[in-house]
Amino acid sequence: MSLTISIDAMGGDHGPQVTIPASLDCLKNNPELKLILVGNETIIQQLLPKDLTVFQDRLTIQHASQYVEMDESPSKALKNKKDSSMRVAINLVRDGHANACVSAGNTGALMATARFVLKMIPGIDRPAIISTLPSIHGHTHMLDLGANVDCTAEHLFQFAIMGNELVKALEGIDNPKVGLLNIGEEDTKGNEQVKAAAKLIENSSLNYIGYVEGNSLNAGPIKVDLIVTDGFVGNVALKSIEGAAKMIGTTLKEAFGKNIFTKIAGLIASPVLKLFKQRIDPRLYNGASFLGLRGLVIKSHGGADTLAFKTAIQLAEIEVKNDVIRKISEQVEKILAHREIA
Amino acid sequence: MSLTISIDAMGGDHGPQVTIPASLDCLKNNPELKLILVGNETIIQQLLPKDLTVFQDRLTIQHASQYVEMDESPSKALKNKKDSSMRVAINLVRDGHANACVSAGNTGALMATARFVLKMIPGIDRPAIISTLPSIHGHTHMLDLGANVDCTAEHLFQFAIMGNELVKALEGIDNPKVGLLNIGEEDTKGNEQVKAAAKLIENSSLNYIGYVEGNSLNAGPIKVDLIVTDGFVGNVALKSIEGAAKMIGTTLKEAFGKNIFTKIAGLIASPVLKLFKQRIDPRLYNGASFLGLRGLVIKSHGGADTLAFKTAIQLAEIEVKNDVIRKISEQVEKILAHREIA
Repeated sequence: MSLTISIDAMGGDHGPQVTIPASLDCLKNNPELKLILVGNETIIQQLLPKDLTVFQDRLTIQHASQYVEMDESPSKALKNKKDSSMRVAINLVRDGHANACVSAGNTGALMATARFVLKMIPGIDRPAIISTLPSIHGHTHMLDLGANVDCTAEHLFQFAIMGNELVKALEGIDNPKVGLLNIGEEDTKGNEQVKAAAKLIENSSLNYIGYVEGNSLNAGPIKVDLIVTDGFVGNVALKSIEGAAKMIGTTLKEAFGKNIFTKIAGLIASPVLKLFKQRIDPRLYNGASFLGLRGLVIKSHGGADTLAFKTAIQLAEIEVKNDVIRKISEQVEKILAHREIA
Repeated sequence: MSLTISIDAMGGDHGPQVTIPASLDCLKNNPELKLILVGNETIIQQLLPKDLTVFQDRLTIQHASQYVEMDESPSKALKNKKDSSMRVAINLVRDGHANACVSAGNTGALMATARFVLKMIPGIDRPAIISTLPSIHGHTHMLDLGANVDCTAEHLFQFAIMGNELVKALEGIDNPKVGLLNIGEEDTKGNEQVKAAAKLIENSSLNYIGYVEGNSLNAGPIKVDLIVTDGFVGNVALKSIEGAAKMIGTTLKEAFGKNIFTKIAGLIASPVLKLFKQRIDPRLYNGASFLGLRGLVIKSHGGADTLAFKTAIQLAEIEVKNDVIRKISEQVEKILAHREIA
């Protein structure tokens, strides 16, 4: 299958200053990749090297006259920004010109636009946001990360089915271990939605391992590949982890910066500290996938730098290569059909 | 006021092996403190020094013939363990023989027993669990941490009132900054309970600063003294942070343990790393307070070691000295009466 990705070149806190160098890097790294840079053509041209012959036909520009502000309301963006770089980039996916779209723009507007333009996979009620976290066991994937504040058991079950297919594709494993986020491992724990979702997942073909607690995101007692929760809890958990990492990083830096002796110790330890930072560098985990839509949309962190935005594009490449939208659609149809018969 | 604390000596993963040395340490540190060790008298006696004259009348033993298992169901503990160390320790608070009780026992059983024995403060519907987290701004306090999986706006408001009084006492500040945990800072964000709770808190005398996100627990853009949320979200957030800290610690250790050169760097950096660890040592944040009851109960982490259990006893000392139960009761009466008039 072809590998063409549309880039919302204007999105994010840094816009084209980040999206364009990241796009060029990705084109250099993967000779199969084609990118369509969507946005203000004049601005984009200025940031591109004069000679693009090295990329042949792999880099094209699609002009869009508008862009969505980072704090613009989703409904306003949807109504008033029909020629935004975000909207046009998603249109390219809908029309089959791109296999996926990557944007660092406003999450709410991106989700609303993607849902409006691409429509839902039949059988799925709501889209969900999934991302990857580093864990002492490797990686953990979690959804939903904020698209849905209130979820029924059925929604959580649908998230599990979709997430399971994505994790199979990304991790190359057959039976991801699926856990439901809860406040204890015993059957009696949790709210009614979680308890009912547990029954649905348990009775499905998924490899359900039971309830897991918040620590399982990064460092649980056993490996969990996919953690399912509602968007309120998932978003808070993700941001709590970000805050913890920031505090720990700040504290470590302060400890090494205290005086001349600690600074020397820091210099000596710097190759080790660098290695440590790389292992948990959030830029290497950038990119959240919107699941449930009839097309692939990857959301990059708004504050992404070039390395982080590159990671998001690379995530899109992997998902396109693995044909995840088709696999999710098939699985949804299979499991939901099976449930109706049962 | 007197300062007598009952200790559930049998509670926790390590029982008297931890609770007794921690108790003796606290008695040495604070000449005003009196402790009542509750549990199997024979076992307790064996772990105490032969000569107790140094403590005069400050250390007494209250025999209890039973103890609550760490995985025992709250209802069974309540029904079958009427002479457990946990129950007897709480009875001592009810009967005025102790000003507070500290236990590292099973959280569910402790909460159920405390609620049954001590009863609720009039005006408060449900007890909540509050604890302290290290933050780049100092400390943040969060409730509820798991006592209530589903909360109405009114419950969240009651948590805010109680937490506010506790934070005033613990931090010695007049107007703690109170935030509501949400998945964004805009008014449109969140579920119905959170939006309604925001209105209640905003219209009260509390120093409400608005919605805060998960990163505010440890490292938000501004200092928040008290973060209010329901027990499901609070528990997941707390455990997510624990997991993140564990992963980062493990990764740092692995980086320094990689080879002979990194090990030497680690040796040189060890005083700095020690300082760093102390700053975020979870044992120095051990101890969660049950709020809403007509008596003070502090829950220690089940796996607490001596240092951690000491921290929990010291937290009880501070709360007793600051008369927090009376202050919370007065404030609840004042604010709820005010609301009924309005």
